[in-house]
Amino acid sequence: MHSQQELTKIVNDALQQIKMNPNVDRLYQPIRYAIDNGGKRIRPVLMLMAYNLYRDDISRIINNALAMEVYHNFTLLHDDVMDKAEMRRGKPCVHVKWDENTAILSGDTMLAMAYRLMSENDDFFNEKDVSLAQYQAMRDATATFNQATIGVCEGQQLDMDFEAMDDVAEEQYMEMIRLKTSLLLSCSLKIGAQLACASQEDCDLLYTFGEKIGLAFQLQDDLLDVYGDPKVFGKNIGGDIVENKKTFMLIKALESADSTSRELLEQWIAKKEFDRQQKIDAVTYIYNVCDIRAVCEKKIETLFEEGMDALARLNVEEEKKEPLRGFAMNLMKRNS
Amino acid sequence: MHSQQELTKIVNDALQQIKMNPNVDRLYQPIRYAIDNGGKRIRPVLMLMAYNLYRDDISRIINNALAMEVYHNFTLLHDDVMDKAEMRRGKPCVHVKWDENTAILSGDTMLAMAYRLMSENDDFFNEKDVSLAQYQAMRDATATFNQATIGVCEGQQLDMDFEAMDDVAEEQYMEMIRLKTSLLLSCSLKIGAQLACASQEDCDLLYTFGEKIGLAFQLQDDLLDVYGDPKVFGKNIGGDIVENKKTFMLIKALESADSTSRELLEQWIAKKEFDRQQKIDAVTYIYNVCDIRAVCEKKIETLFEEGMDALARLNVEEEKKEPLRGFAMNLMKRNS
Repeated sequence: MHSQQELTKIVNDALQQIKMNPNVDRLYQPIRYAIDNGGKRIRPVLMLMAYNLYRDDISRIINNALAMEVYHNFTLLHDDVMDKAEMRRGKPCVHVKWDENTAILSGDTMLAMAYRLMSENDDFFNEKDVSLAQYQAMRDATATFNQATIGVCEGQQLDMDFEAMDDVAEEQYMEMIRLKTSLLLSCSLKIGAQLACASQEDCDLLYTFGEKIGLAFQLQDDLLDVYGDPKVFGKNIGGDIVENKKTFMLIKALESADSTSRELLEQWIAKKEFDRQQKIDAVTYIYNVCDIRAVCEKKIETLFEEGMDALARLNVEEEKKEPLRGFAMNLMKRNS
Repeated sequence: MHSQQELTKIVNDALQQIKMNPNVDRLYQPIRYAIDNGGKRIRPVLMLMAYNLYRDDISRIINNALAMEVYHNFTLLHDDVMDKAEMRRGKPCVHVKWDENTAILSGDTMLAMAYRLMSENDDFFNEKDVSLAQYQAMRDATATFNQATIGVCEGQQLDMDFEAMDDVAEEQYMEMIRLKTSLLLSCSLKIGAQLACASQEDCDLLYTFGEKIGLAFQLQDDLLDVYGDPKVFGKNIGGDIVENKKTFMLIKALESADSTSRELLEQWIAKKEFDRQQKIDAVTYIYNVCDIRAVCEKKIETLFEEGMDALARLNVEEEKKEPLRGFAMNLMKRNS
């Protein structure tokens, strides 16, 4: 059984080994740059952890884990183009450092590379007794990967749609963040289990674990955007408020506020010109009046518990679950 | 054995059946629009023709054929964004009709859909005796598909690189059009043969056939851009000359012209302001002096013959090769 730290190192080392055609340097330089630009490698590590619940030989599925990480980095690259973002993890985005066409084409290539890594994993088949079960496991895992790659695109589209919408329902928002944030976590875990030929029940439980933890994490991110410590959070507080982002908090506030507060909130949303800090303070004040923080924390708590419950029900020795439990705790920065 | 016309109809009907999530309409409308916008469906038809050389049950690989067509349409969609093209087959491009972000994201989704079609082809496995050989065939075909998807991106990058280069060698140009144009034809044919469990030799011969015919077709396109009949060619004559596109003809002219002609050619290339028709006439005149038309026609002839030779060497009854032979003739608009 490997620790999160060990797995992260294994993933980072393997990412360095991905082969890229040196004759098309201008295509692969940005790809190398995007992949090297850090990140916690959460998704491939989760895949390896899930596999590791059932089998020790994690080297067999390294390529599949890399596929998920390359796919994730592709989404960041294209999202940055679409959002016209300038910086990613403290460095200029690919479309800033190079240009937009380079970012589009390098991103496309990364998506194709992700699928190549997913399908051309000779390590998985390098045993002498290649069996139908192995092929079936690969086929199931590929179907899950497809679900992830298409679902994330759908989530990105919904996110863009919501920008232009006045009223987004809680249910719609949760579905959007499920697709955009949770799906890669839940599918990473499920793929790990599928490749280990785990039972359907365990595959589904791991999927649920990832889904719930992912949702809890995204809601916590929304919460920290309002109530976080700027020194710890690393982003400017209030960004979502300034941009009228239809977060869980805003949706809940619009839903539960009395008519006066609701009117005030709508006025702030409609304002084209405003003082940034004044808007943040005013909206936060309304959130406070409506006790939105507690509502959000309760929701996070419930989702987290549901995720941990799915993990608890997994048909695997308790001690083997420790890395995944620790991972979830760590992700939510919880001590207990 | 199916005719080209029958296969085209089968492909067009099947394209209509591709499932798209109705809850994310804004994502799938442009995809439907792009797919419906015609085209000759050359690549999926070639795949089915190759399969049909060995087996009759072409319905088993329809999804694989669709995968290639959806992939091809994805490349057109993103290429149009990168080229800032306005129209595609007489209709506004997706990024014009909607916007650039929509075009990027819908394109990404099409690439993922192509891979889903490639991998989730239950029809291929729906026989009772699922065998290792079938899985192996799928695995080989997927590797060929990966080669195509990544190679085309590389070709597009080289094409963009060449715009900024002064001297592109013939060899470099041929490699670029091999990747950008030929590869999807050769890989379509090879995948069809692989899924039919044809011999490695036949798979390679079909690949060569597609590659050579594809190269011949692209060179003919270059030639028609200069010497074509505007009424038949459908594009404005001389577009490549105006844009200084490093085509086979320009490369050959720079290579073979005497110092006076070469200097003149370089002057026209360097000119920032010029009368369009004057430039076309001047460059065409130099091409005529250097007899570039004959050089190009000779090259096309050789490539075409090499392609037909590969087809002739295929270990399949001669009459079965008729559809592919007819296809090649038709593509080159040849009567013999």
